Amino acid sequence: MTTESEPTPLVAAVDLGGTYTKIGLIDRNATVLAETKVPTKITAGPDGDGGLGTVSWLGDEIAAFVEAEAPRPAQQVVGFGVIVPGIINSESGTVIAAPNIGWYEVEVAGPLTERLGLPGAIGHDVRTAGLAEWQLGAARGSSNLLFVPLGTGIAAAVVVDGRLLEADGYAGELGHTPVPAAGELVCACGGIGCLEIVASAAGVVRNYTRVTNFDRVPSAEEIAASARNGDHAAQSAFELAATALAEAFVIAVTLFGPETIVIGGGLSGAADLLLPRIEQEFDRRLTFQRRPSLIISAFGSQAGMVGAGLLGWNSVPS
Amino acid sequence: MTTESEPTPLVAAVDLGGTYTKIGLIDRNATVLAETKVPTKITAGPDGDGGLGTVSWLGDEIAAFVEAEAPRPAQQVVGFGVIVPGIINSESGTVIAAPNIGWYEVEVAGPLTERLGLPGAIGHDVRTAGLAEWQLGAARGSSNLLFVPLGTGIAAAVVVDGRLLEADGYAGELGHTPVPAAGELVCACGGIGCLEIVASAAGVVRNYTRVTNFDRVPSAEEIAASARNGDHAAQSAFELAATALAEAFVIAVTLFGPETIVIGGGLSGAADLLLPRIEQEFDRRLTFQRRPSLIISAFGSQAGMVGAGLLGWNSVPS
Repeated sequence: MTTESEPTPLVAAVDLGGTYTKIGLIDRNATVLAETKVPTKITAGPDGDGGLGTVSWLGDEIAAFVEAEAPRPAQQVVGFGVIVPGIINSESGTVIAAPNIGWYEVEVAGPLTERLGLPGAIGHDVRTAGLAEWQLGAARGSSNLLFVPLGTGIAAAVVVDGRLLEADGYAGELGHTPVPAAGELVCACGGIGCLEIVASAAGVVRNYTRVTNFDRVPSAEEIAASARNGDHAAQSAFELAATALAEAFVIAVTLFGPETIVIGGGLSGAADLLLPRIEQEFDRRLTFQRRPSLIISAFGSQAGMVGAGLLGWNSVPS
Repeated sequence: MTTESEPTPLVAAVDLGGTYTKIGLIDRNATVLAETKVPTKITAGPDGDGGLGTVSWLGDEIAAFVEAEAPRPAQQVVGFGVIVPGIINSESGTVIAAPNIGWYEVEVAGPLTERLGLPGAIGHDVRTAGLAEWQLGAARGSSNLLFVPLGTGIAAAVVVDGRLLEADGYAGELGHTPVPAAGELVCACGGIGCLEIVASAAGVVRNYTRVTNFDRVPSAEEIAASARNGDHAAQSAFELAATALAEAFVIAVTLFGPETIVIGGGLSGAADLLLPRIEQEFDRRLTFQRRPSLIISAFGSQAGMVGAGLLGWNSVPS
């Protein structure tokens, strides 16, 4: 209950990416009230500082945004949540490895708490987006689910028995599950036949351009449009992605037993080209396993920000 | 602290199998004090009673064993734990599907509690054996582990973040993960290329007899002995099993992030023929993943009974 004289409490939500960083303010109802997007300052590298500069840059950016967007006495920022792609230990607030940011074994939550004078937490980008879909979005009420955003890469947030799996940051790397449809192709991770080689947005582009020559490489959205217009090569690119996804989902269903799989990320816009084939493969391959329903993300590209807000709110003493 | 005048509390532990059932008494220190093995009475089937007779048979057998083996006032049985192969909902005490016993949607814990006048619980055979290895055995102290018994079939008990995964009984069906080494072979479950087709004890026998003709089908132990004596076909049978296990473990490591994989079951006696190849495949296939240590079960074939005892103790009000 907020009266006119009490400031509205907000948390700062941050989606840190390798290229851009989104910073927003989120209220108790998970509404994003203000948002900005700035280029990420990477300070690691051969002559860099091991990424420490990125931590202080991030603290300054959040502080400046909060200062500009949340004027006292009307609004008061009471916590923060930051999501990061990589292997994240959210309990200790440490990034174990975030290659896109240049962070290896870097403490992030502690220094930000000190800089901002606020409680807060960091989390894995995909797991945190999954938290949003689970607690507030497409999979609300489910105790066993996968959230699988199909973006440049693929990872999964996995909820089993009403708990989001962490395993010190190692759980749910579905994009690096080897699948037959990816054959012996070598992944950016060094692995062989990883799902994301053929089933991420980048993978669909690769599937398409392997068999066709272009002056300009089309986007996954353009390839989806071509597939809908009857372009056979584009249809094949999505069929390969769907087959690979089905193979990985069969594995995940066998091991995690989800009731629901929530598809998110950019490629979820091409669900019409993916889901029928996946359902067909489920018909063929699932036997005693519990068959999950396949649904589309409720928050779309905002799932990460909403989840970062939840991280923030969970850090604020009630 | 037990004085001479107080009876020693014990729990009845039961390992219900499709052919034989083991019943034992277990003390607070997980020591098995008495044990018997009786043929399982299956009452389901075309003209059967849907397996209800097996429930009452089991109650009678436990009661008779307790009567005979735990004389008052020296000993007192205070609870029971029963492990069952299949899809088990341990929370509701219901067996969803146990094909070997002929149970489909059968309440088990409730009727046994009523018959015996004792608190108790049922659990999945493999998950419960994994509970024993985790809490008292080879993986004590680990928060992220797999327990994988290699027997007639293969399943896994999975602990993530210090919790044993259930997913309403559907979690951890590692034996039915499709792996390239099993090709297009069809599993008893109806699935294609499931791990256990080539990597269970039965699978090793099948791998061997596919390429060799015998008057008498050898056991997995005999094939292991032949492999150690230089029999190339026997060595190939274990190599195929090890390759398939490595493929499944790479998947499980990528999705669950375990620190430890505990190998149990009959084939753990042939670990010398399996582990070197699995480690080699880990060298080749694991990249950013956390590499687990591979260790051998501490309780061997008694892991299930020790786990059933834990189920019993966990049901007893303290």
